[in-house]
Amino acid sequence: MKPPVAVVVLAAGAGTRMKSALPKVLHPLAGWPMVRHVLENVRRLKPARIVGVVSPGAKDVAAAFAPHPTVVQRQALGTGHAAKAALGALKGHRGPVLVVYADAPLLTTATLQRLIDECRKAKAAVGVLGFVAHDPTPYGRLITNGGMLDKIVESRDADEAEKAVDFCNSGVMCLDGALIASLLGAIRNNNVKKEFYLTDAAAIARAAGHAAIAVEGDEAEFQGINSRAELAVAEKVMQQRLRAAALEAGVGMADPDTVWLAADTKFAADVTIGPNVRFGTGVSVGAGTEIKAFCDIEGVRIGRDAIIGPFARIRPGSDVADRVHIGNFVELKATRMGRGAKANHLAYLGDSDIGAASNIGAGTIAVNYDGYGKWRTVIGADAFVGSNSSLIAPVRVGAGANITAGSVITDDVPAGAIAFGRARQVTKKGRAAALRAKLKARAAAAKRAKKS
Amino acid sequence: MKPPVAVVVLAAGAGTRMKSALPKVLHPLAGWPMVRHVLENVRRLKPARIVGVVSPGAKDVAAAFAPHPTVVQRQALGTGHAAKAALGALKGHRGPVLVVYADAPLLTTATLQRLIDECRKAKAAVGVLGFVAHDPTPYGRLITNGGMLDKIVESRDADEAEKAVDFCNSGVMCLDGALIASLLGAIRNNNVKKEFYLTDAAAIARAAGHAAIAVEGDEAEFQGINSRAELAVAEKVMQQRLRAAALEAGVGMADPDTVWLAADTKFAADVTIGPNVRFGTGVSVGAGTEIKAFCDIEGVRIGRDAIIGPFARIRPGSDVADRVHIGNFVELKATRMGRGAKANHLAYLGDSDIGAASNIGAGTIAVNYDGYGKWRTVIGADAFVGSNSSLIAPVRVGAGANITAGSVITDDVPAGAIAFGRARQVTKKGRAAALRAKLKARAAAAKRAKKS
Amino acid sequence: MKPPVAVVVLAAGAGTRMKSALPKVLHPLAGWPMVRHVLENVRRLKPARIVGVVSPGAKDVAAAFAPHPTVVQRQALGTGHAAKAALGALKGHRGPVLVVYADAPLLTTATLQRLIDECRKAKAAVGVLGFVAHDPTPYGRLITNGGMLDKIVESRDADEAEKAVDFCNSGVMCLDGALIASLLGAIRNNNVKKEFYLTDAAAIARAAGHAAIAVEGDEAEFQGINSRAELAVAEKVMQQRLRAAALEAGVGMADPDTVWLAADTKFAADVTIGPNVRFGTGVSVGAGTEIKAFCDIEGVRIGRDAIIGPFARIRPGSDVADRVHIGNFVELKATRMGRGAKANHLAYLGDSDIGAASNIGAGTIAVNYDGYGKWRTVIGADAFVGSNSSLIAPVRVGAGANITAGSVITDDVPAGAIAFGRARQVTKKGRAAALRAKLKARAAAAKRAKKS
Repeated sequence: MKPPVAVVVLAAGAGTRMKSALPKVLHPLAGWPMVRHVLENVRRLKPARIVGVVSPGAKDVAAAFAPHPTVVQRQALGTGHAAKAALGALKGHRGPVLVVYADAPLLTTATLQRLIDECRKAKAAVGVLGFVAHDPTPYGRLITNGGMLDKIVESRDADEAEKAVDFCNSGVMCLDGALIASLLGAIRNNNVKKEFYLTDAAAIARAAGHAAIAVEGDEAEFQGINSRAELAVAEKVMQQRLRAAALEAGVGMADPDTVWLAADTKFAADVTIGPNVRFGTGVSVGAGTEIKAFCDIEGVRIGRDAIIGPFARIRPGSDVADRVHIGNFVELKATRMGRGAKANHLAYLGDSDIGAASNIGAGTIAVNYDGYGKWRTVIGADAFVGSNSSLIAPVRVGAGANITAGSVITDDVPAGAIAFGRARQVTKKGRAAALRAKLKARAAAAKRAKKS
Repeated sequence: MKPPVAVVVLAAGAGTRMKSALPKVLHPLAGWPMVRHVLENVRRLKPARIVGVVSPGAKDVAAAFAPHPTVVQRQALGTGHAAKAALGALKGHRGPVLVVYADAPLLTTATLQRLIDECRKAKAAVGVLGFVAHDPTPYGRLITNGGMLDKIVESRDADEAEKAVDFCNSGVMCLDGALIASLLGAIRNNNVKKEFYLTDAAAIARAAGHAAIAVEGDEAEFQGINSRAELAVAEKVMQQRLRAAALEAGVGMADPDTVWLAADTKFAADVTIGPNVRFGTGVSVGAGTEIKAFCDIEGVRIGRDAIIGPFARIRPGSDVADRVHIGNFVELKATRMGRGAKANHLAYLGDSDIGAASNIGAGTIAVNYDGYGKWRTVIGADAFVGSNSSLIAPVRVGAGANITAGSVITDDVPAGAIAFGRARQVTKKGRAAALRAKLKARAAAAKRAKKS
Repeated sequence: MKPPVAVVVLAAGAGTRMKSALPKVLHPLAGWPMVRHVLENVRRLKPARIVGVVSPGAKDVAAAFAPHPTVVQRQALGTGHAAKAALGALKGHRGPVLVVYADAPLLTTATLQRLIDECRKAKAAVGVLGFVAHDPTPYGRLITNGGMLDKIVESRDADEAEKAVDFCNSGVMCLDGALIASLLGAIRNNNVKKEFYLTDAAAIARAAGHAAIAVEGDEAEFQGINSRAELAVAEKVMQQRLRAAALEAGVGMADPDTVWLAADTKFAADVTIGPNVRFGTGVSVGAGTEIKAFCDIEGVRIGRDAIIGPFARIRPGSDVADRVHIGNFVELKATRMGRGAKANHLAYLGDSDIGAASNIGAGTIAVNYDGYGKWRTVIGADAFVGSNSSLIAPVRVGAGANITAGSVITDDVPAGAIAFGRARQVTKKGRAAALRAKLKARAAAAKRAKKS
């Protein structure tokens, strides 16, 4: 049996170009902190260990690695120094050690697996992922010879022949676990920046008579993120991957470029999504459901054959059963809608439980907050809540009850009852003209007062 | 006089890659089922007949062809076999017969007309539409010689010289109505897939001493649709055509890429449309009207100098007169707004008739549904409906009437009357502190109960 | 000291291809009339004078130049004729005179400054901005020789050697103020169109023994706007510039392509903006504030650490303090929200003043309009306004007051008071079934009536 892999994730970069109080690797991408994408991708390699390397005081970054351990790189002395900080946590590990970057979340599991496999095949002490660069100017070049990686030459140190090479260094490496300590130990900082470059491990391995190889990946996967603009580009790439997968699975999207997916969004086949729909994390959508334009949906399981939107907003903690309709300008928050229940127009249902086939009228508010506590509204099956009603939680409305439009419901309503809480209409014939004259005069007086 | 054309529309493809219960050619494109675009395009040729070829049991597809007849292709034995299924329906037709595809809706009438014209000029038994392919690899090549089409070579059967040809077969053909039966009858299925290829008609015609020609079109028009991703690409092309035509006609759009049009959307000049507006089918918009950002509009005639949105939603069956204002979070459904009427904020007007110059206050709900029937609200001219009112339909409010804010209106209000249906305000001085203490204690108790 | 520059802005073009009643140069771009971008760009040159040239009767265009004077070009006889119309307004000016176009708003101050500097260095009578055209076909060519501009050849008059030149004329010129009158006076209209071309000034200057130069700029900056489609392209370029600057300044945007900025939008660092947010003019946003998806925001200062949206609409005249929350389907108009105040769901707050830490319940309407006048609602700090309340302005609610859900508030509420204006709930047990039977029968009868 092959010894398992270990992964070191370098996450100690400063990220100053983001101009943000939030650590760079915690900035969101498809709804997840950037580093989580890297962790999910390396987890699929089924590694024996994952170790994060973080900068001093970066508690939130360390927390994002949990349950995986992190070590602190005390000073920012280069990638070689950062990798060395992980050696303690790798003690006893004999298999390959992958070194990846928390700010390069587009690198796929498949490419990493290929690097590991090639290293095993070549019994290489060091393997480096490279890419053929569209513009190689800024990158270190991978100088190979007969299948072996001879050395990695920094762009500024390259001679003319080396500059002509367009096979570039991604920085992602696979090192032999039995040799990693000695390889990293041999890296020196005799360079302009006085930093220890992980890159040097390749030449060190070759000098010691070991094999070193370079494995090619697609340039797009190695995009690192150092600025808000680069983050936006990575988000676009990520979204295009997610959208392509959804289309392939049978999701209909009139304009996929305007559907924003989270890394964990789940769709059954024959879901239809209009333009301009944003999915936060934690959403699953059942077969045959249509989500119309302009929706914002997060943290909800939506059943089959439901109709959502346009202009619907569903917040976390919700559950929407089969055949439910949620219409325009309706907000659900931590609300369960039973099978076939409807809330089609202008409503706020917070902390509510709406029974199957119940109808919630336009303008209904589940009044869940009193300034101090949040309370639940529980409505049974087949109830009818009239428009513009206010349900003062905690309150229960029984199955089959009718609430008359415009009512304020403060007390529980038994099943099968009618409840109303509204004043009787009074009509004063012919009186509008006098009222209007009064209002008109008031407006005119205010206008005069403003002028003077 | 030239004999008229007949058109055979092949619509029997399986469409399994769509992963949808909906037949492929019924998937919407710019608001219409895909096949309807093809039908509209060929109708403009003023053909004597249009015949659809559908697969067994495809009732919905056949219905989409109405009033044109369809024939059933019993088995999926290739395009030649499908075209042959239409021969019965073509009996007696002597003019050109065009064979087009229901899943290639981007092909324009002008290109089809050109094919017919060239065939007539050349007295060709067979004419084929071809295109110069960006990447010819997957396509059959059109081998021409001195203006004549010699043969169509499938990609896998092409020799090196033929592979170098980038003039490719679209599959769209025009056949001489007097010869079509014999040409189709001569097609054989002696190939790997055991299918009858319509393509073979060209070589068959030449072998029989007839003329065959190839006519070039633009590759973009021949994009077929086999997957959700290809459907999304076709939608983008269609939208770009529609947007370009609207801009050309004097419609202002700040970001045309975020305006979704239907195939039948009609604009006067000097209409202005903000970003993110979706038009469903059946919309016309008058001159000088502004539609602000984030609107969803379907099935409505909108007059001149109206202001719609942002965040307005108009549903089918509505009519919005000149100078009407529809503001944010307002929904109209099957509602007529008279000249200069206004509903500027958070309202639902369903099945309503709002008189000219009337003002509908924020939060107003026309309560059109009682759980069983839908009822109309009719409001006269120059009425004033106060905010947060509920109008319980069926109900009539006369011209010049005033409804006080917060009222529930259950009975008709005569013209010029004032109506109110709300409780009088009661103020309890200095009592908020005690209420808040009670609410705070309740919240604290609930929190304790949760913990224990 | 160098003599200051004067700027002539040509704004007399007809703009017929826009198909709009609005003069072309007043069409909006990033929220400003097109010509204002040109004016802001030339103002940064600190010119001694700016003179607009407008067509007869173009009062709105002239007003857009204020406080800068405009002159009227009586007849549309070409750019040379238009520039000549400005000579009176330039009387006494001896420094360089820049001639720019009101319909080319993408030209930057930096490029103009470079033209002026190069003209000064070369003591040129005429300097022309040119660009290397992607497709030079439609443009006049700049024929240079040893650093001097020999002549400008119109495309149709160019010989083969001249046609091979891809350095093209932008039309933007810098003329020596001491010579401008004689140069313009020498331009003749002996051409097909019988127009006076400003372009001819270059050859005239050279013929008179003066220096003339051409200065290269980026083609993208010279994009003129003649149609709705070109306006949309310019808007896209403008938006990309504004978005790039915002990202660079530390603004996070998940999808920058769907954030529409105004020319004057101001952001602190660490602002986060979701997809689909439109900013009108006059917005500034403080550090740490998050603006979620689907918002439309105009004319408001927003403080630090606020949370806005999704689906929020803020209209001009508003002020949103630190830590305020504005949630979905909420509209603010000319409303001040004090520090930490919240309006999280479905509300209209117009002409209101909401005190710090106050909570506005879902469905609340500040009823600011009575059909004649607009009135203010003033709410003190730490007030609690229950859901679905209507506040009939003018009205004041004191600090720490509680308004019960569903109330209509017509009278001022003192600080610390409780106010309610709603009916008491009445519950009729077991009566829903009979009501439903009645409603069902009514619906059935209506259906029958319709059929018959």
